[in-house]
Parts: sequence; structure tokens; C-alpha cells
Amino acid sequence: MVVFTLLASTKVMARTSPNLVISTADVKDMRGAIQKDGQFTKAFVASKLSVDEQIAQVITVPLPADGGGGYTHERHKKNYKLMYDAGIVYQLTQDEKYASYVRDMLLEYAKLYPTLPLHPKRKMGKQNPGKLFWQSLNEAVWLVYTSQAYDLILSSLTANEKTEIENGLFRPVVKFLSVESPETFNKVHNHGTWTTAAVGMTGYVLGEQEWVEQALYGLDKSGTGGFLRQLDELFSPQGYYNEGPYYQRYALMPFVTFAKAIQTNQPEREIFQYRDGIVLKAIDTTIQLSYNKLFFPINDAIKSKGIDTIELVNGVTIAYGLTEDSSLLDIARQQDQVILTGDGLKVANALDKNLDTSYKFKSVAFGDGNDGKQGALVVMRQDVGGEQAVLFKPAAQGLGHGHFDKLTWQFYDKGEEIVSDYGAARFLNVEAKYGGRYLPENDTWAKQTVAHNTVVVDEKSHFNANVEMGNANHPELLFFAKNEHATVSSAQIDSAYKGVSLKRTMALINLPRQSKQDHEQSLVVDIFDVNSNEEHQYDLPVHFKGHLISTNFTLATQLTSLPVLGKENGYQHLWLKAQAQPKAGLAQITWLNDNGRFYTSSSIMDGDASLIFSQIGANDPLFNLRNENAYITRKSHAKNHTFVSVLEPHGEYNPSKEFTISAVSKVEALTYKKINNIDLVDIVFSNNKHYLLAVNTTKNNQLNTFSFNGSKYQFDGRFKLFDIKQ
Amino acid sequence: MVVFTLLASTKVMARTSPNLVISTADVKDMRGAIQKDGQFTKAFVASKLSVDEQIAQVITVPLPADGGGGYTHERHKKNYKLMYDAGIVYQLTQDEKYASYVRDMLLEYAKLYPTLPLHPKRKMGKQNPGKLFWQSLNEAVWLVYTSQAYDLILSSLTANEKTEIENGLFRPVVKFLSVESPETFNKVHNHGTWTTAAVGMTGYVLGEQEWVEQALYGLDKSGTGGFLRQLDELFSPQGYYNEGPYYQRYALMPFVTFAKAIQTNQPEREIFQYRDGIVLKAIDTTIQLSYNKLFFPINDAIKSKGIDTIELVNGVTIAYGLTEDSSLLDIARQQDQVILTGDGLKVANALDKNLDTSYKFKSVAFGDGNDGKQGALVVMRQDVGGEQAVLFKPAAQGLGHGHFDKLTWQFYDKGEEIVSDYGAARFLNVEAKYGGRYLPENDTWAKQTVAHNTVVVDEKSHFNANVEMGNANHPELLFFAKNEHATVSSAQIDSAYKGVSLKRTMALINLPRQSKQDHEQSLVVDIFDVNSNEEHQYDLPVHFKGHLISTNFTLATQLTSLPVLGKENGYQHLWLKAQAQPKAGLAQITWLNDNGRFYTSSSIMDGDASLIFSQIGANDPLFNLRNENAYITRKSHAKNHTFVSVLEPHGEYNPSKEFTISAVSKVEALTYKKINNIDLVDIVFSNNKHYLLAVNTTKNNQLNTFSFNGSKYQFDGRFKLFDIKQ
Repeated sequence: MVVFTLLASTKVMARTSPNLVISTADVKDMRGAIQKDGQFTKAFVASKLSVDEQIAQVITVPLPADGGGGYTHERHKKNYKLMYDAGIVYQLTQDEKYASYVRDMLLEYAKLYPTLPLHPKRKMGKQNPGKLFWQSLNEAVWLVYTSQAYDLILSSLTANEKTEIENGLFRPVVKFLSVESPETFNKVHNHGTWTTAAVGMTGYVLGEQEWVEQALYGLDKSGTGGFLRQLDELFSPQGYYNEGPYYQRYALMPFVTFAKAIQTNQPEREIFQYRDGIVLKAIDTTIQLSYNKLFFPINDAIKSKGIDTIELVNGVTIAYGLTEDSSLLDIARQQDQVILTGDGLKVANALDKNLDTSYKFKSVAFGDGNDGKQGALVVMRQDVGGEQAVLFKPAAQGLGHGHFDKLTWQFYDKGEEIVSDYGAARFLNVEAKYGGRYLPENDTWAKQTVAHNTVVVDEKSHFNANVEMGNANHPELLFFAKNEHATVSSAQIDSAYKGVSLKRTMALINLPRQSKQDHEQSLVVDIFDVNSNEEHQYDLPVHFKGHLISTNFTLATQLTSLPVLGKENGYQHLWLKAQAQPKAGLAQITWLNDNGRFYTSSSIMDGDASLIFSQIGANDPLFNLRNENAYITRKSHAKNHTFVSVLEPHGEYNPSKEFTISAVSKVEALTYKKINNIDLVDIVFSNNKHYLLAVNTTKNNQLNTFSFNGSKYQFDGRFKLFDIKQ
Repeated sequence: MVVFTLLASTKVMARTSPNLVISTADVKDMRGAIQKDGQFTKAFVASKLSVDEQIAQVITVPLPADGGGGYTHERHKKNYKLMYDAGIVYQLTQDEKYASYVRDMLLEYAKLYPTLPLHPKRKMGKQNPGKLFWQSLNEAVWLVYTSQAYDLILSSLTANEKTEIENGLFRPVVKFLSVESPETFNKVHNHGTWTTAAVGMTGYVLGEQEWVEQALYGLDKSGTGGFLRQLDELFSPQGYYNEGPYYQRYALMPFVTFAKAIQTNQPEREIFQYRDGIVLKAIDTTIQLSYNKLFFPINDAIKSKGIDTIELVNGVTIAYGLTEDSSLLDIARQQDQVILTGDGLKVANALDKNLDTSYKFKSVAFGDGNDGKQGALVVMRQDVGGEQAVLFKPAAQGLGHGHFDKLTWQFYDKGEEIVSDYGAARFLNVEAKYGGRYLPENDTWAKQTVAHNTVVVDEKSHFNANVEMGNANHPELLFFAKNEHATVSSAQIDSAYKGVSLKRTMALINLPRQSKQDHEQSLVVDIFDVNSNEEHQYDLPVHFKGHLISTNFTLATQLTSLPVLGKENGYQHLWLKAQAQPKAGLAQITWLNDNGRFYTSSSIMDGDASLIFSQIGANDPLFNLRNENAYITRKSHAKNHTFVSVLEPHGEYNPSKEFTISAVSKVEALTYKKINNIDLVDIVFSNNKHYLLAVNTTKNNQLNTFSFNGSKYQFDGRFKLFDIKQ
């Protein structure tokens, strides 16, 4: 343990090092751990090997020249990771060569940095520019890592070396990111979080408490900006981040890293208790917003991102270090990555001892907005011999990466997407695909309403695809309720289209089994109510994953030429594959997912509405889009319309074992009525089962009574599923 | 052990029971095994549970009424499996209730069978009819199981019961399947194998050695038919079955079952040594014809069938029982199914003791036809940090389930199909999809040449899609050779099209690494030579799996309307998505597979040939086809043409870890020359590597010499890969 005095600082304080995410006590434990076998030692050996390979090469600190993905950009990113990793290896091995390598690289940076103008590839007006990187965001990330690397080797440096590095590098970077960029620094936004974390952590290392105060409360320390304000504003009370789980995962990193550093340096701040434990809630909510290890891909999400991303590995590691909640180990085991920190050691030891218990995924309506009242992201789950989930999205717009998909839904079963969301149109970092950035089709297709499973009015997108309008308006969650057999939620929005109100009620149901021999039977019920004083065209798409097996109505399929469905707002990307006009009654569409299960959607048709089967891919000159399938229920020239349907998973297709069971829907009849403000969906099955779902979406929902088919019924509260004996 | 005399038989012989696939010695071991924990006991407990549930129901032996998939059909299938399983449980538990259940069901059958006419759903002219089932094939399968079930409970029966069951059931069934159906019985065909196995096994149980002789040598015992003739004719000397692995797996069952029964009863026949061990070779070849657990899907194959199918589980179990080859346990572990036999016990014990060693997949040219000289199915494999495989198919037609795909190929990498085969157009047992049978599109698409990766002349299929023509002609394998860095094979056929000769040479290459830092670099080289005296249109499709990333030439993409590519022979099912006419030189097409790797095809273009990008799905009114993608190189109005291309796996797309590496091909130039009958493909890479593949496909291949770019080269034998220093 080395105690020293920071001469360069005006404020003198005694300090041990390291003392950010990793403390000296952690280091002691970690040095002990690597003497024994186990997951921690394995991770250390792998990291050391990688560091050894890299430090055998000459140090390269190039003059900044390239934008994102380019050589100098990538090199500076590699450098900060390498310095951080080498710092850890130094602490664990106490081999000076690692510290020297980091020192030499820092000295190079200290020489270079003061000479740098703004980055040549900066984009004025769009992103704040950096000096090492084209945008200051990267510069802040660089500092979060590099301040930690410096902290890890501090004890090996001479006073002169420290002065040179701090004066040449850290002080100028901090100055550039804080007082010289007040707008970003004070911004209550993810970029601001990286910046305040970077400046605050550097403040701890250099003993500049003033920087810490500014990081926490804003440049003027008024509390109108800064880390705490970000914790107040960017999450809902339940820990939901407005942009959705894909960005929540990304945003998490500076929050958990800086919080941990604050906890190490100033435990008296009780940062992890702040706002009723919002940091831990945010970590847990990120986990909750996943299915089969992948995040629900709402908004601009890359669909393969999931719980094993490094940001959430860090989050889970720090959360376990604090709480020792054994169910977090379940997630850690799936993440299969051990972090070389004190908390990482705790996780590794616990996994080595098989202390993990099952993590519970829950049905929750995550309130949106800082007050939790700007709509909600609703997750409904049930275990029917395998987990099912409905994601229902009466959430707010979610800023620039948000999609125009108010009240959309997704369905997951047996590990797979069944009713899906396209996610972002992007091939991350693939140069040939628009430089790896968001594709033009992200705007023309992925964000548009028709790309989602919600009502499109007159072939236009919600808010006319205007982000500001979207941000200014949000749906209202009417209720979220559950009991043993069902989870039900309802929400509405009147502002997505002028003069049209949209209201949707969704239920995830697991029917009661009448005997042990009964198979599990689950259902998703969807009631979508559209009301207007004017006539409109209402389209309700269902983007389904699987192979179309059958329809109970005749298809007029395009055989020798495929026309495009529309002209704009996403419709220009849809091929019209087939049309149908089912007669009044039940329209059934069955598809087969790769998971080997059949799915039948049964909808109530009025004899006037039509069905369109589409495939994505029109107006796509460079094959940027995935050719996925949807069917669209279209009601034209209507003022009011209620779309009612039931989605029913059934059977199994097992060509390997050569059997197919229950390939046919059991739903025989479906009716919908509204009595005394109560929505009634009556479902009759071919095996003589008969259920009636009654939902009251109004606030006046005590003791609901109604008559149905000559019988009287009553229930308390929001809903009841009646099992009607034949 | 019970010794008894069969009174009903004219020939009296002493016999112990059971003594077919399972012997009395096996039973003793198995009874011991289930006293202890382990995989065998687990399998037994599961089987007993299932049997207990089923025998709690009343015995149902319905009057035959339904065809395949219908109620009586499925019931009689369930009955034979149940009787067999209950027989095993009886032997292991010695609980009489299981024997009584089987006895009572057999007595029901003995009452019913003599009253049965031919099955009402029989299809005259197409399949031989049965009595219990619509086709006699099912009746034979029924007897294979039921004769074993009878053998398992024989010791529990009174003489009267035996007489009643044998006279009422087994003798009439045997008579019906043998002397009354001489055509099927003597047929050298899979149906014949089931029939001879059924009759022969029943012969052993009833002590009717005459039936055994007929089963082995044909009804007249001349050897022109029967089981041994089937072993002679239906497999190539290497154990390849003419219809391909999907049907080989199915055909295997009666071969291994009857062979095992012969071995148990008459070890002196040395049946497993017959024809140089053809039964074991057939089992091993079935395993070899798989990749990542799934069979290569040539011909009418359901693509999800693989090594865990019950037929191969039986095959591997019996093979391990005979050979104790520990590498078979590797397969058995992946199959994860334990058979309740003596051999199954051996496998389970060995797995419990972790005796398995790695099974080696090899590069092999499996000769086709009973002499192994009617073409070949060529498998090339290499391990490049993950297994790669090329399947090259200069094989014979493979009868009615064969596809018109002479010289086609497939490529597999990192566990996935990269260049693919459609397999069969069928949703097995899914009633809504054409009754679960082969779809009409199996003929109009899946079997047609354009559905494969081989040359189509004038938009017609090989042999004009005439099966008889196909069966009468086969390609010639010119050679198959390998060394440390490459596996090369060449084949030709002149009969697929009148007046057009097709010759293809394929090489799977793993380039030598010049340093440890070098990445593995593998390639597939394809040289397709077409020759005719007349002008034709030559199309060479590549059905690729993945998302199109880029082309190095301009695409004319259909934006607002998709036309159909052609009128017939499969072309009517292809949408024309884009066209291109690359200038002379290198045309490159890159796609990204779900396995996260990029694949670039680099082809030599002459400035005249064009490229077509297509998607399956036109003229498909009921959405029966999968919408898969292909590109087709088209050379019109040519007499002779050589298609030369190189397929190069490269890089990694990892959006979860946010990196993309080597997304761009390293192939910079490609030239092809023919000098002194030597095919030369010169490949220049962007990293200054430069290789020359020289292949001599002629028989005169001793000491090949040639000059290339001013240097002299020589090699012995079929091929050499020259590493040309810059």
C-alpha cells in the first residue's frame, strides 16, 4: 500500500491507490485468488496472455485522423483497453514491466494531447467534437478507462512522471470535457453521464474533489446538471431507461462504474441507496427486459445484443458485490465472463461454489419517464413448460432512437420470437453496409409504424414520424393486472393521429387445466379499438416468424409478378404477396416456427375487412433489408373499428422423430361484445372448453356485472377469466 | 431360462427365449444393471413409466380402416411398439402383468387377422397392399417388432396360447408377406429388406428354419433374392446406399436388426463379416454422411434428420456391441438415447464410464452402385478451427427419390449450411400441407436441376427430369485425391444433356500458414467445364444461405415489381430480384451467414456472362416453398464455357461484442488457364500471398510440367498447390 501526496493539486489529500472500481483490499484478495485454480484465475491467465501479446508490440499513439471505425479511432480505443488491462495485470503480478508500459503510453499521450486541435473528422452541429476522437463521447469513454489505468499504476510512478502525465494529459482532458464543453457536461443524457463519470473518476485519482463535486452536481454545482440529476431524470422510478433495453444496457456502463468509484471513495454518500436504489434497479430492469438471453429489440436495437454484453456483465458483477443476491449468479453464469475486479472475484468464487439460484423473470409494467407516468413498457410472462412473454409497448417515444410504434406488441415462446419487431436496420461496423451505420432503411422502414404490430391509419406513421411530436406525447397506461391464469394490460393514445384514438387491451392467458392429462393451453388475446369521427383506413400488421402453414380462407396469391404495397411510410418496402377477403366470422392463419411449434391467429372478421400477406424487400436496391413476412388486417372507410384476435400456440412438428401433433387450431368460435363498459371475448374450443374473458378498462371497476348468453356474471376489479361449463 | 419344444412346427428344435436382438444372457445383465444408477436405469425407468401408462388403458385392436396417418393406422403402429416395450419390461421386471398384456393383445390380433381382407385403403399398382395397413411395408415393420415382442414373452405362455397365437397370427402374416407376396419378398429393395427381416426373425422365434432360409436366399432359396442379395446389391462396397443418407438411415433399421438376430441365432453364419463387413460399413457411412449432427440433405431429404434418429441409434448400439469401438460412443453420447438391449447396456455402461473417444469424420469418395463404380458421393472435410465440409455429388440418380443434380455441391462451415441444397419440399405429417406427403413443389421445384448448385442447360433439367433416364446413366468419378493442404476431386457426365458434356473439378483447400500469427485461410475452388458442338444457354446457380452484403459490380435491382424468372423446370418458382452484367475480370459477391462469418465468391467473368439474383416463391399459391436466395451465373449462346470461382470464408460479424473483422474479401485476382491438359487456377491475395492450383484430371498424370508466368513448374500425380513467393 502506497500513501503519497499529490503535489500538483491545490487541495492536498492522502490517498491509497488503486481506489476506484478496484480498491487496495480487492487487490490483496485478487492476488491471493490467482494462486489457486478457478474461474477467476482462468480469466486472469487469458487476460495476461492477451496483454503480453500486445505489449510485445511497439507503443502506438497516432495523430488523430480517422472517424469511427477508422484506424486512429480504433487504435485509441485499443489503447485505453490495453492500458486498463495492463494496469490490472500489474496490480496482480506486481511485475513492473506492465506499469512501465502503461506509463510510457501515458507519457506519449501527455506529449501529444496538448498539441491537438479539435478532431479533423468532427461533425459540427450534430455531435460535440473530441480531440482524440471525432466525437467527445469517445473521449469521455477513453478517460473513464484511462483514469482507472492511471490509478492502477500510480504507486509505481515518480513524482515527476505524475506531474508530466497529469499536467500534460489528465488536466487538459478534464478541462476540455468539463469547463470547455459545458453543454455536454451538464446535459441530462447518456453522453453527459460518460462525461461526468470520466471527470469525477479522474477527480478522485488526482485528488481534485472539486471535479467530483462538479461531476455530481453540474459545473455550477447547482444540481441542475450532473450525475445525480442524471440518476433522477434518465430512469423511471422502476429503473427503466427511456430509450429501451438496447440503449439502457449501453447507458448502464458509466452509471455503475462511477457509482462504484463513488462508493469506494466516499461510502458516506450512499450512492447505491440514492433514489431508493435506482442504480441497482436499473441493472435489474436491464436483465428483466430480456428473453432467452436477448434484449427485447424495441426501437433502434441490434437484435443479437443480450445479457452477455460487457456493460451488463459489469453491472451484474457490481450488483452482486453489493447485494450478494445469489440469483444474480444465475445471470453471471449465463454471461460466462469474469471481470478482474474485487466484485468479479466474488462472482467467480460464488460460481466456483455453485451458489447460484434461479433468477426470476417477472410480469411487470415498467413505468416510463422520470416520474414513471409517461406510459409504460409492459412485460407479461408465464411458464407453460417453457417461458412465454408478451411485450406490450404503451411506452414513450424514447428520443431519436425511438420507433413510431405506440401500443405495439411482440410475442415469444419456446425460446423464439413468434410475433416480432424488426429492430434496427443496421449491420454494425460492416463497412460495405453504409459504413456500418444505421442504414437509410432504418428511417424508411424500421422506424415506421407499419414495421410494427400496431394500427396504421391511412398508411401514415404515428406522429407523422416526427420525433419531436413523439417525444412530446405518450400513451397512457390504463392498467396492468394479473392473477393466477392471466396477465392483462390496457393503454390508449389519442395523439398518435389527429382525431383518432387508439386503445389496446392485451392478455396473456394460461387456461386452467381440468385434468392432469390436459395439455397446457396458452393464449394471447388482443382487443384493439380505433375511434374517429372521420372515415379512415385502418391497418393492423402482425409480423410473424415462421412458415405459413394454412389459412381457413381462400388466398389470392400473386403467382407471376409481385407488386409493391404502397408508396411511402414503410409501405414502399412491402411486396404484396397475397390478398384475401374472408367472410364474416373467424379468420384463421397458422404458421410454423423454427422452434417446432404451430401458432394460429384467430380473428373476428366482419366480411368487409381484408387481409394482406406481405414480404419486406421492395425498393431495396442494395438488399439491405431482411425479407420477413407479415399479414395485415385492413379495414377501409371506417370511423370506428375493433380488431379482436386470439393467438394460440399449439402442437409440435418433429420431423426428426417423425411425428406431428396438434397441427390444427382448437379455437372454434370467437365473439366480442361490449356490455356496461366491459369488454367480453368469448372463446369456444373444439374440445368443449369455453372461456369468457371480461375486462373493465375504466376506472369505475368495482363489482362489474353483466349478462351473457342468458346467464349473469360478476367480478371485482379489472378482469376475470370465466370458465364456462358446457 | 426356459427350454421348450415348438409343437406346431413340422421341424422341431430346442430354443431358449428371448433370442433375437436380445438374448437370455443379455437379459441377465440388464436385470443386474437396473439395480444400480446410470443411464441404462434411467432409460428403463422412463420406458416402464410409459408402458405402465399405456397398459392402464384398455387393449384396442381396431378393424383396419384408415390410410397412413389415420386412426387405425396409428393405433396398429402404437400397438407394435407397446407390445415390444412391454415385452422388454416383462423380461426386466419379471412381472407377469406385462407378459399378460402382450399375450392378450396378441390373442386379439390372432382373432382378427384371419378375418381380414386386403386393406380397404390399398392403392393398387403403386404399393403392395397389407391387411392391417394400407401397404405391406407397414405390415412387415409391424412383424419385425411383434415377432420380437412375442419372443420376449414366449416363456410365459402355455402351449395352447402359443398355438392360438402362432396359428391365428404369425403363420398367416408370414404366409401373406412371403409366399403370397413373392414380388415384394424377392425384391432387392428396402421394402424387401423389411419383409425378409420380418419373416426371418419370425422363423427364428417359431423354429421355422425354412422361413429363415427363404429370408436369406429368396423364396426359392436360389439367392437371386433375399437378405444376402440385398446386402450385395443395395450398398456400394464402402457401405453407401444409393438413395443417399436420408434414406440410408431409414433402410438401415431392418438390416441391423435382422443381422443382429442372425448373429444371435446362428453366429456360424458370420453375418457381420459378410461382404467384408458391409453392415458395419453401412452404419459407419451413415454417420460419415452427416455434418454438425444432420445428414447431408441430398435427394428427397427432410433437413432436420440426423444422427439422433432412432434407426442410427440402433445401428450405433449394435455396432458398438460388436466392435467396442470407443469412437462410436462419441456418436452415442450425441444421440443421447439408450436402447434397452444387451448392446444398449454396453453403450450405457461405457458412457457412464466416459470411455468415449473422438469420432473422426473423414474425407472420402463413397463409390456409388453395388460395384462402387457408378459415380460417387464425395465428402471433403478439413478442420480449420471448426470443421468444414464440401459435399460433391457425382453420384448416381438414386431411384425415385433422387434429384436431377449431377455434379452439384454443398458447403458447410462453422456448423452451418453456406452453399445449400433445398432438400425435399415436404412438411412431414402436417395434414394442412398436402396431407403431410411430398408437396407438388417437390417435383416442380426441389427435384429440378435449377434448385441445385450445378449447370442447367437451356433451362431444362438433367435427363429432362426423367427418372428412368437418370437411373440408366451416372457420372464418372475421374479422381479423388488429397494431401496436407487440399482435397480435390473431379467428375464428368455426358448423358445429363444430349450433346453436352459436363465436367467439374472441386478443391477444398486450407492454405499453408506462413507464421503463427496468420489466420487460417480456407478456400473452395470450383472449375466447371461445359462443352458442346451446339450453342446453348448455361446457368450455374449458387444457393447461398445468408444476407447479401455486397457485390463489386452494379446491381440492377427490381424495385417496385418482381417478375418471374422462367416458365418451367423450376424456373417458374424463382422471382428475379436483380440482374447484373459485370465487366470482364473478377466478380465478387459477399454474404453474411447466421454463423457470423462472411463468405465471398470470386468468379472469373468474361464480360458477356450475366448474373441473376433470385428468390424462391413464385407460382406458389399456398406458400409451400421456403423463400431462399440464389445467384445464377448465366452464359448464353455459347458452345463451350468454363465457370471458375473461388469461395472464401472470412472475418467475423459480432454485433453482440460490437466488432466486425475482415468483412472484405482478400482475393484480388483470379485467372484460369489450361496448359498441357493441366487446369491452372492462379489466386492472388491482397496480403501478398499468391497460390497456384494445378490439377491434372486425365489418366496420364505422371510428372506434369508446365510454364506459368515465365517460371517452370512440375508435379507428380493429380494436383499440387504451389505457394508462389512474390
